[in-house]
Amino acid sequence: MKELNYNTEDPIAALATGWEESALAVIRTSGIESIELAAAVFSDPDRLLNAAGTTAVYGYIIDPGSGERLDEVVATVFRAPKSYTGENSVEISCHGGIPAVSAVLSSLTGAGFRNAAPGEFTLRAFVNGKLDLTRAEAVHEIVTAKTVKAHSLALNRLSGALERRIDQLKTGILDMISAVELLLDYPEDELDGQAGDYPLNAEDVANLQSAVEKLSDSFRAGKVFRDGVPVALAGRTNAGKSSLFNLLLKEDRAIVSEIHGTTRDYIESWITVKGIPLRIFDTAGLRDSENPIEAEGIKRSGEVIAEAGIVLYLVDSSEGLNAEDAKFIRNFSDPKRLICIWSKVDAASASAPEGFIPLSSLTAEGLGKLEDALSGIALGKKGIEDDVVIDSLRQRDLLNRAAEALLKTKEAVLVEAPLDAVAMELKDALDALGEITGEISSADILNNIFSNFCVGK
Amino acid sequence: MKELNYNTEDPIAALATGWEESALAVIRTSGIESIELAAAVFSDPDRLLNAAGTTAVYGYIIDPGSGERLDEVVATVFRAPKSYTGENSVEISCHGGIPAVSAVLSSLTGAGFRNAAPGEFTLRAFVNGKLDLTRAEAVHEIVTAKTVKAHSLALNRLSGALERRIDQLKTGILDMISAVELLLDYPEDELDGQAGDYPLNAEDVANLQSAVEKLSDSFRAGKVFRDGVPVALAGRTNAGKSSLFNLLLKEDRAIVSEIHGTTRDYIESWITVKGIPLRIFDTAGLRDSENPIEAEGIKRSGEVIAEAGIVLYLVDSSEGLNAEDAKFIRNFSDPKRLICIWSKVDAASASAPEGFIPLSSLTAEGLGKLEDALSGIALGKKGIEDDVVIDSLRQRDLLNRAAEALLKTKEAVLVEAPLDAVAMELKDALDALGEITGEISSADILNNIFSNFCVGK
Repeated sequence: MKELNYNTEDPIAALATGWEESALAVIRTSGIESIELAAAVFSDPDRLLNAAGTTAVYGYIIDPGSGERLDEVVATVFRAPKSYTGENSVEISCHGGIPAVSAVLSSLTGAGFRNAAPGEFTLRAFVNGKLDLTRAEAVHEIVTAKTVKAHSLALNRLSGALERRIDQLKTGILDMISAVELLLDYPEDELDGQAGDYPLNAEDVANLQSAVEKLSDSFRAGKVFRDGVPVALAGRTNAGKSSLFNLLLKEDRAIVSEIHGTTRDYIESWITVKGIPLRIFDTAGLRDSENPIEAEGIKRSGEVIAEAGIVLYLVDSSEGLNAEDAKFIRNFSDPKRLICIWSKVDAASASAPEGFIPLSSLTAEGLGKLEDALSGIALGKKGIEDDVVIDSLRQRDLLNRAAEALLKTKEAVLVEAPLDAVAMELKDALDALGEITGEISSADILNNIFSNFCVGK
Repeated sequence: MKELNYNTEDPIAALATGWEESALAVIRTSGIESIELAAAVFSDPDRLLNAAGTTAVYGYIIDPGSGERLDEVVATVFRAPKSYTGENSVEISCHGGIPAVSAVLSSLTGAGFRNAAPGEFTLRAFVNGKLDLTRAEAVHEIVTAKTVKAHSLALNRLSGALERRIDQLKTGILDMISAVELLLDYPEDELDGQAGDYPLNAEDVANLQSAVEKLSDSFRAGKVFRDGVPVALAGRTNAGKSSLFNLLLKEDRAIVSEIHGTTRDYIESWITVKGIPLRIFDTAGLRDSENPIEAEGIKRSGEVIAEAGIVLYLVDSSEGLNAEDAKFIRNFSDPKRLICIWSKVDAASASAPEGFIPLSSLTAEGLGKLEDALSGIALGKKGIEDDVVIDSLRQRDLLNRAAEALLKTKEAVLVEAPLDAVAMELKDALDALGEITGEISSADILNNIFSNFCVGK
């Protein structure tokens, strides 16, 4: 039920690749007349107009007024419904220089394309039935994934794993609704041999409810893999924070650090442990360099520690615990977020106090234990149970609504409540699940979802 | 004459789009077996293997070991010679997330592709006769162009304008060589009616020489459009430097500033005046914020002024010239690089001293004159005479060698020197021009050219 009133005759265009100097850039267009409009600014319009779907055509984007060549391109024609959006579409691969991209975009705008809104291509794909909403959301998640694991979970959703899981749950609910409605439509005296049987049993409903809850709980893991966990390194001066920071960086298997040319701060400061993205803050570094005024530095350190999902507190084993350490550990607000580390064990003789992980940044002794502790706190004890993980607040809220309705159903079944009340709860659960995949959707919901997308997606 | 021993059977792959989160990324491959190798990690290998040239195929890149899907892609197959490199090639358009790109690249490497060196795709295009060297160099210049004008000049070279100009010059020289060699091959007594005529005249040679020199001189304009000109704003505190800076920014017609999402410093600090990229340094800003210690700030300002191609020296017209101003102007090393501005003329009554441009940053009065002065210094009095402009030191040096040989030819013709000596000079000029387009090239020359390219180009 796609009720959205959406005008797909409106031709759109946007840069789909990164906005920086590079060998190539791709400008995506979509809309019923997109091939004709692109042909109007193409050096060989007939070849574009007559191109079969999924065919690449070499030529130039020109200024339609002066005929001046603006850039050399390869334009790939997609014909509805065989395109990303399900509409006619031309993807223009031009040179990746900033003026080249600008000139091609201007020419397309002049020809009648408007700049696409964030996520508008994917919104059209949804409106045209190419994707359900769980897959549409996965598109955004794939692009913003920080780690290989987050990418792989999102790709799994894009491939329809979540949609299929939701469909299974819906089938379970639909079967119950059918059983109930059969009795509602045909009073029991007409149904031979079933007279007196209540059509549902509470255990089946409870199983369904727990499957829905499990999916809702997977949000936490999804969020961890998507957003990562801020980790603060704390401890006295010379407790070994910087050495540990370097060790974690060195042992990092995140593919992003292997690629030549990634120099952004936001990438380099992500560290991956067991596929979980961790953003490490060295509070010592904060105090020493960013804030020359010591008092301000200490304040900032405190804020970082308060906001961190996990705090690593280091104590130099050759110095031993002192009053300052004891006070920090005793006063720490949430012991479940704290990992205490007995550092520099390569040099030390004193054995680690209870609850401390002995660690040497020199020999990497204890690193495995630290990684287990980090992933344990990040994902919870259970970790990820399967590869269908949700990654959107919207999905979680709807799953919770479905779980709530199933709980009420179960309670009604236990007391053999009137069947029309039971049917109403089951239908509410079904609606909530239907909203997840987008069977039921409003313009507001769609705007909410797609406005977070990047332009060109 | 492509003498380079280059193994194009070696399959290469590289990311060709920007390395940042975006809707799409394109990974380019090339090499004789590139289609077969890409098919080995493609979800539907047969469709890729059987795809006609310039056809896009939808599918997944998979891990060939586990069969796990790594990303959803559209792979466009190009079959030799109809491809950028002239070889078989597959361009893979995947999601623009960092882990997606990494996973696809790893899979391709696992399948037997190696990472392409900078410029290697274009080098192959040259080796395979798809481009001459002037066009190959233009590819790099297009990508790194900072302004629409620089892009358009580079695109002109890519379209072959420079190659054609060089060919014209070569034809002129070849005609002269033919005339000389005719007489060398057939002693004059055998040629009826031409006995005693010297086969060349000095004016023709001089015309050719001056055409070569003009092309060589265009290097200056090319460099200005490519690299831009550093411009320093100087003057006493409150001379109006920041207001002028803001005015220049506001009046800037550079397309880059119109695009939503361009937040890089290096883009935002480029200003375009009459198509010329200018990098404006406000020395006041330097002194005030970047260097808290005043002495260091003054030293930095001095360095910026010394290195600037143009210095704008502002004097507040309401304050008038003082000894400090007079000293700066008198001591400035190269008056041709200095533009003196009589600022804040909206508020002032005193008329501008000789040689000063009266300017109001409030009303933009005088801005046109300032822009003329800026482009006059940047490009020289003559500006650009036509749209064939060279943009590489290599090209300029070879043009200078040709011009030198033509000068010697002219001198020899003037004294009716022996024809074999004249022929030798003419051939040297011809060789120099041939080297520009790459008819004559060595591995060293090619390495020099292509190592400046970005990867993926």
